[in-house]
Amino acid sequence: MTKKIRAAIVGYGNIGHYVLQALQAAPDFEVAGVVRRAGAENCPEELKGYAVVKKVSELHDVDVAILCTPTRKVEAYAKEILALGIHTVDSFDIHTQIPQLRKNLGEVARQHNTVSIISAGWDPGSDSVVRTLLEAIAPKGITYTNFGPGMSMGHTVAVKAIEGVKAALSMTIPTGTGIHRRMVYVELNEGYEFDKVAAAIKADPYFAHDETHVNLVPSVDALLDMGHGVNLTRKGVSGKTQNQLFEFNMRINNPALTGQVLVCVARAAMRQQPGCYTMVEIPVIDLLPGERDQWIGRLV
Amino acid sequence: MTKKIRAAIVGYGNIGHYVLQALQAAPDFEVAGVVRRAGAENCPEELKGYAVVKKVSELHDVDVAILCTPTRKVEAYAKEILALGIHTVDSFDIHTQIPQLRKNLGEVARQHNTVSIISAGWDPGSDSVVRTLLEAIAPKGITYTNFGPGMSMGHTVAVKAIEGVKAALSMTIPTGTGIHRRMVYVELNEGYEFDKVAAAIKADPYFAHDETHVNLVPSVDALLDMGHGVNLTRKGVSGKTQNQLFEFNMRINNPALTGQVLVCVARAAMRQQPGCYTMVEIPVIDLLPGERDQWIGRLV
Repeated sequence: MTKKIRAAIVGYGNIGHYVLQALQAAPDFEVAGVVRRAGAENCPEELKGYAVVKKVSELHDVDVAILCTPTRKVEAYAKEILALGIHTVDSFDIHTQIPQLRKNLGEVARQHNTVSIISAGWDPGSDSVVRTLLEAIAPKGITYTNFGPGMSMGHTVAVKAIEGVKAALSMTIPTGTGIHRRMVYVELNEGYEFDKVAAAIKADPYFAHDETHVNLVPSVDALLDMGHGVNLTRKGVSGKTQNQLFEFNMRINNPALTGQVLVCVARAAMRQQPGCYTMVEIPVIDLLPGERDQWIGRLV
Repeated sequence: MTKKIRAAIVGYGNIGHYVLQALQAAPDFEVAGVVRRAGAENCPEELKGYAVVKKVSELHDVDVAILCTPTRKVEAYAKEILALGIHTVDSFDIHTQIPQLRKNLGEVARQHNTVSIISAGWDPGSDSVVRTLLEAIAPKGITYTNFGPGMSMGHTVAVKAIEGVKAALSMTIPTGTGIHRRMVYVELNEGYEFDKVAAAIKADPYFAHDETHVNLVPSVDALLDMGHGVNLTRKGVSGKTQNQLFEFNMRINNPALTGQVLVCVARAAMRQQPGCYTMVEIPVIDLLPGERDQWIGRLV
């Protein structure tokens, strides 16, 4: 039997939880351990039986670290772990900063003979693969990525930061051609006026350019649902032939898909030359377990 | 300015015609020439100004040969051309024979330090990339590829081979879950009975297992349309989370898309290590012109 890939989960929030499930379901992985700020203290039930530590360096024989930390902490963690000779994967999601992160981690990875695969979730991530494929096969044209309906983590955090907000949820509603409506649901702290809070939300840079509706609700928790979706369309030109039409849709559990994609790229990281890659730079077959031959007959 | 990729078109039928258009539209290619059985004899108007020859070896400085020959001739042509030190790409479409072709051409390619990318059209081809991606991100589940409505070349040829058929068209109609209806349109030669010809068509191995309807029409030519389509669906499990839903649709001009995909993989062939590859083994970013950096900021 082939040796299993030993993966460490770094950060055990929502994504870490789903990464654990994806690792347990994968035929070719074993869990090297889980890294949490609190270490083994107050350890959730499902982690019993696993090594739960405060630092990756406390785990043995780790092949790849799956970073499930907040996006802004990815670079620091990745640099530290790559320098230990361990591959890293993450779902860094600030689109505009991806080229710089790729450059920075690429240098560290090559220096330590390791591989880093960044921005591997569903967008950026699997959607990026579809966008790139469509750009290639219909080189002239416009691609629209429409998100939702689903919860936006970034926008929800932005609402929570506004004074007077006790609990918040920002839903992304697609209205087509890459334009989105923001449906915001809030509970307020006592003594705050809804109209003023709503105005502050609408003036926030996260919302100022979108159609935004703010709703006061008795319980934000009652509205929470991890489902999300994408509708990605391209109308373009292949060669000189106009009106080639493409569409990619998905309706998914958001953290579950992110967790699965992270496990796929952790596998792919074992198969690349040292350096830093986005998902569009990885052959899609490297996301699958086992030998290429077995898949080519079935999927190609 | 970077040197342009010099591509030869081998075979100038329907696909070759669209490959020429895609090469003309591509910023990084120049047409090294066109290889036809008849050479420059009765040369179509649009080929004036290009080298039109009977053998690839008559052209100079060819980087990559784009095979637009019938599928069954791909292996022989590819072996001959790879041995000249020229990369090859093709859209070989007999799904069950792809693994063997990949093995055979891989040996020749490595021996001559060249690259061959096979089965690069839309199915097999770009659909294969989507199927592989979905298999990875939802590892348990079922993918259905539904084709059409559109003309099936293979089925149409099979009908034409039946005695009494003067002209034929077989349309593939999707009925969901990968099951297809065949709508066949025929003109008959004089002296043949429609009922007998229709029975012979339905008994042919191409049709025996599908719901098939045969229609007698005054003009098959009046029905011809190169539009085609795909609806590819997967419902699966990411990690341990059920009911992840994915769908890929396209409505396209069939030979135009095939021609464009062939030009994309001709470009990608310049960037791979010697050997033979299917599209799922190629990073999608290699299908695009220019440097990776420029695309990563925009597409990832």
